[in-house]
Amino acid sequence: MRVDVALTPALAPPPDPARDVVVIDVLRATSTMVQALASGATGVEPAGSIEEAAARARALGALLGGEREGLPPPGYDLGNSPREYDAARCAGRMVVLSTTNGTQAVLAARGHRRVLAASLLNAEATARALAAAPAEVLLLCSGSRGFVAADDVAAAGCLAGHLALLAGAEPGDAARVAIALFDAWRHDLPGLLRRSISGRRLLGIGLERDILDCARVDALPLVVELDRQGVFRKAV
Amino acid sequence: MRVDVALTPALAPPPDPARDVVVIDVLRATSTMVQALASGATGVEPAGSIEEAAARARALGALLGGEREGLPPPGYDLGNSPREYDAARCAGRMVVLSTTNGTQAVLAARGHRRVLAASLLNAEATARALAAAPAEVLLLCSGSRGFVAADDVAAAGCLAGHLALLAGAEPGDAARVAIALFDAWRHDLPGLLRRSISGRRLLGIGLERDILDCARVDALPLVVELDRQGVFRKAV
Repeated sequence: MRVDVALTPALAPPPDPARDVVVIDVLRATSTMVQALASGATGVEPAGSIEEAAARARALGALLGGEREGLPPPGYDLGNSPREYDAARCAGRMVVLSTTNGTQAVLAARGHRRVLAASLLNAEATARALAAAPAEVLLLCSGSRGFVAADDVAAAGCLAGHLALLAGAEPGDAARVAIALFDAWRHDLPGLLRRSISGRRLLGIGLERDILDCARVDALPLVVELDRQGVFRKAV
Repeated sequence: MRVDVALTPALAPPPDPARDVVVIDVLRATSTMVQALASGATGVEPAGSIEEAAARARALGALLGGEREGLPPPGYDLGNSPREYDAARCAGRMVVLSTTNGTQAVLAARGHRRVLAASLLNAEATARALAAAPAEVLLLCSGSRGFVAADDVAAAGCLAGHLALLAGAEPGDAARVAIALFDAWRHDLPGLLRRSISGRRLLGIGLERDILDCARVDALPLVVELDRQGVFRKAV
């Protein structure tokens, strides 16, 4: 088994039907997806533009959530804060989610064998699912507007470290970089997330609570997988 | 002062005349440049293709060095091993150097305020020079064929750590990643370099000695700067 990390979507290798890929956007798209599914949403469909997402949510009768500049677009039911996606709102509902960076990473993930979504919230559960079906693994960090985002790299390092232990996965260079970042900050992940480019943006708009919510390692031990219809669902 | 790291040339922001940029290719182009200038070469001119470099060296009466697939191209005087660039060969001579990855990084570096070349060999000296003339700093990792190379990231982390201490430079996300990598491996840099994508390639062609030579942190305390004619020279 081999584990590689793409530190931004632009650094992702070409799609490979023999490879599993894990999309990571800790602050906040994949944390929010994991929370929504843990709260009983039946699925989360990532959507491109604000308008496409709204049209799709209408067609599906789904909850419409997302952000631009960190805040919910006009007319949206929900923003992109995990805590908004509670059981009262989500149980039994589909969610359509449109965010700035996560969507690009999902697009870069297509064509691989299996596409999972992970965050710090479900890192170990995701690593166990990958280790149970050994394939080449690519951990795909969403980044922030094309640049490296430390929150995503830390989660990739957490996953890569688990995979090295669970499956003897040999880390590539970028995976080794990610492992070092996670190890350096594992006892102060809120501190790292606060200093990250995405975290500073959230602090600027009063969303510190999201940083704390997204830093809870392994708090929601579920596996999230993209199905053939392009919807993220809780894997059984 | 602010220090950013481009983990590959593709992640470099647009040129900025207010920013100093440091090109890093530990295995091996910038290590070799630093060694050649420490050995008394009058300058090192990076060149593009094998043929361009050969023509340029003829025109200048310069030593011609470089590699493709790690080995010297036919007709070259020298390869890309630092130890080849000793005083007996280099003192008082110009060198023209053509390598696989370093040249791309130098091209991505143009248009910035000042362009330096650094490796582990001259990391602290380079950091001191940057701290003495505070500007925005970009540490530009050459990488390997477009992918992240751990040897370059480690040297960027070493420099960024020095800059944080010397000038209170605030690290961006990629700089924080690089600092974590250097700190994790600072007591076994030959081990990190051996495991890196570039290091494994060198091991495969019998050049382990180069890995040890390039891992000697601060062994050659000189500052290397690109002049207006596109030649790297020892800064006074």
